[in-house]
Amino acid sequence: MILSENISSDTLKNLTLEEKNLLCEEIRAFLIDNVPKTGGHLASNLGTVELTVALHSVFTTPEDKIVFDVGHQSYTHKLLTGRYSDFPKLRSKDGISGFPRHAESEHDAFIGGHSSISISAALGIAKAMELEGKAGNVIAVIGDGALTGGQAYEGLNNVSKLSNNLIIVLNDNEMSISRSKGSVADYLTRMRSSRSYYDKKAAVKDFLSHSDIGKEISKSISGTKDLVKFAIYQSNIFESLGLKYYGPVNGHDLGKLIEILEIAKMTDEPCIVHVKTKKGKGYKPAELNSGEYHGISKKSAGAQKSLTFSETAGTALLEHADTDDKICAVTAAMKYATGLEHIAKTYPERFFDVGIAEQHALTFSCGLAAEGMLPVFAVYSTFFQRCYDQLIHDASIEKKHIVLFIDRAGFVGEDGETHQGLFDVPMLTSVPNTEIYSPFDRNTLKLCIEKALYESDGIAAIRYPKGVCPAGVRRKYRDFYYSGKQNDTLIVTYGRIAHFAQSVEGADTLALLKIFPINAEAAVTAAGYSKVYFFEEGMKNGGIAEKFLYELYGQGFTGKYTVTAVEGTVGSADTETQLAEAGLDREGMIRRLRDE
Amino acid sequence: MILSENISSDTLKNLTLEEKNLLCEEIRAFLIDNVPKTGGHLASNLGTVELTVALHSVFTTPEDKIVFDVGHQSYTHKLLTGRYSDFPKLRSKDGISGFPRHAESEHDAFIGGHSSISISAALGIAKAMELEGKAGNVIAVIGDGALTGGQAYEGLNNVSKLSNNLIIVLNDNEMSISRSKGSVADYLTRMRSSRSYYDKKAAVKDFLSHSDIGKEISKSISGTKDLVKFAIYQSNIFESLGLKYYGPVNGHDLGKLIEILEIAKMTDEPCIVHVKTKKGKGYKPAELNSGEYHGISKKSAGAQKSLTFSETAGTALLEHADTDDKICAVTAAMKYATGLEHIAKTYPERFFDVGIAEQHALTFSCGLAAEGMLPVFAVYSTFFQRCYDQLIHDASIEKKHIVLFIDRAGFVGEDGETHQGLFDVPMLTSVPNTEIYSPFDRNTLKLCIEKALYESDGIAAIRYPKGVCPAGVRRKYRDFYYSGKQNDTLIVTYGRIAHFAQSVEGADTLALLKIFPINAEAAVTAAGYSKVYFFEEGMKNGGIAEKFLYELYGQGFTGKYTVTAVEGTVGSADTETQLAEAGLDREGMIRRLRDE
Repeated sequence: MILSENISSDTLKNLTLEEKNLLCEEIRAFLIDNVPKTGGHLASNLGTVELTVALHSVFTTPEDKIVFDVGHQSYTHKLLTGRYSDFPKLRSKDGISGFPRHAESEHDAFIGGHSSISISAALGIAKAMELEGKAGNVIAVIGDGALTGGQAYEGLNNVSKLSNNLIIVLNDNEMSISRSKGSVADYLTRMRSSRSYYDKKAAVKDFLSHSDIGKEISKSISGTKDLVKFAIYQSNIFESLGLKYYGPVNGHDLGKLIEILEIAKMTDEPCIVHVKTKKGKGYKPAELNSGEYHGISKKSAGAQKSLTFSETAGTALLEHADTDDKICAVTAAMKYATGLEHIAKTYPERFFDVGIAEQHALTFSCGLAAEGMLPVFAVYSTFFQRCYDQLIHDASIEKKHIVLFIDRAGFVGEDGETHQGLFDVPMLTSVPNTEIYSPFDRNTLKLCIEKALYESDGIAAIRYPKGVCPAGVRRKYRDFYYSGKQNDTLIVTYGRIAHFAQSVEGADTLALLKIFPINAEAAVTAAGYSKVYFFEEGMKNGGIAEKFLYELYGQGFTGKYTVTAVEGTVGSADTETQLAEAGLDREGMIRRLRDE
Repeated sequence: MILSENISSDTLKNLTLEEKNLLCEEIRAFLIDNVPKTGGHLASNLGTVELTVALHSVFTTPEDKIVFDVGHQSYTHKLLTGRYSDFPKLRSKDGISGFPRHAESEHDAFIGGHSSISISAALGIAKAMELEGKAGNVIAVIGDGALTGGQAYEGLNNVSKLSNNLIIVLNDNEMSISRSKGSVADYLTRMRSSRSYYDKKAAVKDFLSHSDIGKEISKSISGTKDLVKFAIYQSNIFESLGLKYYGPVNGHDLGKLIEILEIAKMTDEPCIVHVKTKKGKGYKPAELNSGEYHGISKKSAGAQKSLTFSETAGTALLEHADTDDKICAVTAAMKYATGLEHIAKTYPERFFDVGIAEQHALTFSCGLAAEGMLPVFAVYSTFFQRCYDQLIHDASIEKKHIVLFIDRAGFVGEDGETHQGLFDVPMLTSVPNTEIYSPFDRNTLKLCIEKALYESDGIAAIRYPKGVCPAGVRRKYRDFYYSGKQNDTLIVTYGRIAHFAQSVEGADTLALLKIFPINAEAAVTAAGYSKVYFFEEGMKNGGIAEKFLYELYGQGFTGKYTVTAVEGTVGSADTETQLAEAGLDREGMIRRLRDE
């Protein structure tokens, strides 16, 4: 076995090409064997084995910097940079992250959980190295899916101006999580289909300058040669943006990869290396359905799918769409994960997957609303962070009625720091004309969807967590649930942790369903207690608890008030552990009530 | 005079080309005469007179939808759609907005204060119209500067998939506010320089299909014809993205503009019309220095420039850069407005203008910080909203030390709803590893800059308002100013409104300088009062006042507590009026203390 805990960027460089190919096979077998045990991203990592081995054959970290965008393709890189033995604890508490973390290893040049940032980060790193007189190359590895995010383009737009030691490796696997959407994807397809593109280009150049016919063109039509030259030289979108272009190259041909990266390394201007890879490469089930193997979970997947919040929301939305032809559904590359595949299948003309482009998705939704449609944008809480400005400028100011399905709100488990859904409440509450719902179970989720669609006239958000959605019981409350007064201590909370509260002895429960604006009646109710404990699965600063105190205080409350919420970053662990460590599970509530 | 309150999209259509040209001259004279009286954007509007007249000659609003991006170029449009008589109240209280507002007129299809959103909005509108079976064209008018924002590209990437009645008018004036930055700008320059590009293209097409030499190519080199075709058809970046391209056309030749827009209107696929305009056209001072005439203020500009917060901050930063070669300055197309021109001039290698690309700017800053530089990103509060996700993901999680100069924080006056700087505090306080400073005057601004640069090790933000920076007096406080106890009533506040508090009789003053995290000593001090009044020039939800109450309550405070802060959107007016209406001036404070 070449793959061992002793493998490194250095030892790798001493291997023959044959041995490196063998190493690739070993890495692939290792991933197929190990990732299902810990959960994680399988298909994307299988697709980038040769690419990563090639990168470490040509470059040396940490002197050279590799910035992975999105970093879920970095497992081979982790294996080659001293973290082989850590894989049993991949994505678990006190283990290694599923994404690059500079805090975890100096070989991880930059954090990489969210999409489309690698070029921006790499440019900053490259510029700093230049200013400090440090040698070394900076390589941004970006997928074709990440190229659909606007920030990638902001980065590209700054490359030619800012840097000369930057190499962008375009890992083109023809899909992000679902298939890549939009014109860039089409464009890349055309590029790929003209396989011998570069050879031809050279041939034409040669032809124009040397052949008789070429000379004839120059002579016969004034200006046309310039045009043809212009056309040829500018025929590539990346070259139009001032980048030298190499490729496309087969991303599973290690020899060719190493060769082209060596050329890129010698190039004294910013360049892009277009690499064609296959997601799931070498593992048939993942090759055939890389979407399903994109992120796999520790436990056996499937089966319980119908019980998730996402699935329940997607199904409920389809039911509304059956009777209301104004309803449209929008996603940023998360059709399946957000449960929108149902409406997509039944009403394809009212379903829009815009690529990894949350900013666009939100403004596009406001455009739909401007002409009388009823758009529902389903988005992970963590990615929703991308469209704060659009929320304020495009939705709030002119009070557009849009509905937001904020999925994966709260702790998300193993994906860790970069993916926690903890910021949607501070975001949304700061924006005028906003209402937020936080259901506990299937019945309240459906109720909230109905209210958000038809009782709100501004921004109406429904936040719900990852995972199983309890069936719940049918009750006759509307904006909050209150257990009735039996104690002098009250727990106020919302969302999935509400059910913990109900089983805490010696305390009554007030569970908010419409969590914002603060319900005055709920505050009046709470003001009747001498001790109020607020538990919130979200950031404390900017959260509901702060606002609830303000309301409560206005009611003349002078009792005890404590807040248990999230105050820092929260790393990888299972969700139960994350809730427990934050003091947001049943034991945490009991402890908090006892301690104080 | 053709220009009058009776002019409309309809009457316009009955004019001859000659009369329309005359109308353009009248509009230009009107703008030159009127804009300096009210303040507003002069150069950009002078540049788009013919374009707008051409648009209204070919299209009919509100059935056709024109989405202006950035909408400060919409004055002619407003003149032609029933708002001629409103111009004396442009950008003033109860007057018309300086930007398109759907709430103001059905002819304004979508709001337009922030950059790069028009294509997204237009796509949503177009799609909704298609679904509802409405006829009509949708036209997005976007400047070359706005094209440097990533969202424009997210929109472009979705055009070919989603719409067939969308026309994108690229208003290419070779600059946004300062000159456009980056590769797209370079690319547009190349396009412009090949002026007869389209004629040539047609010629070559013709040549290949009909001429002997063309046939010869087809025969002699297999595959080359395809290549040439490919090269020709794909030689344009917009065509690469699936858009039909028309232009470039002279944006001041009304006849040609009308002609090309008619062609675009007849085109049954998404298309882009590339229009070359000159900012400030027809007014020499503005033509020669369109930057200075970009936004002009009611009062005579200049003179007091050295006294603004921006200028003070820029000068102070230069002084630090003199002794600290790690300091870098980053701006998103606001070099002059943020006072960074000094560091740009003296240390050009450490100054970066990345275009209208706040997302990139923030991640790029984090990249610089990752390699040991000390980046300062100077950005308007309102545009800072664009990089909330980057703040969380790229800066906060791995605790990068970056400094933010949050300029135009608080009310901004005439620019109105879209530009208020009211959300930076909710944004920043929700993010871990953040400190916020809010200076009152020149001395505290300098002190805050020093502390942000050298006492913080995470995100350190300094927020300060638009306008004149008082000299202030040198005092020996660090995190807050406290007047001492003479009354039983305390005013707590921060920022420029702090000086109002000091002259309110019967109340002591506590002015926070480091406003976040909440200073415990300040809370202890406040807890010694029976009445605490918090005044905050920012959003109430997510603001400092909420957090201060929580801290205060923890100190056992049970007195009176009120918060005066912003709770909705705030329209155009002068800043004094905005402060007064929000109850945040001296009289408002006195009223609040008396009323309760």
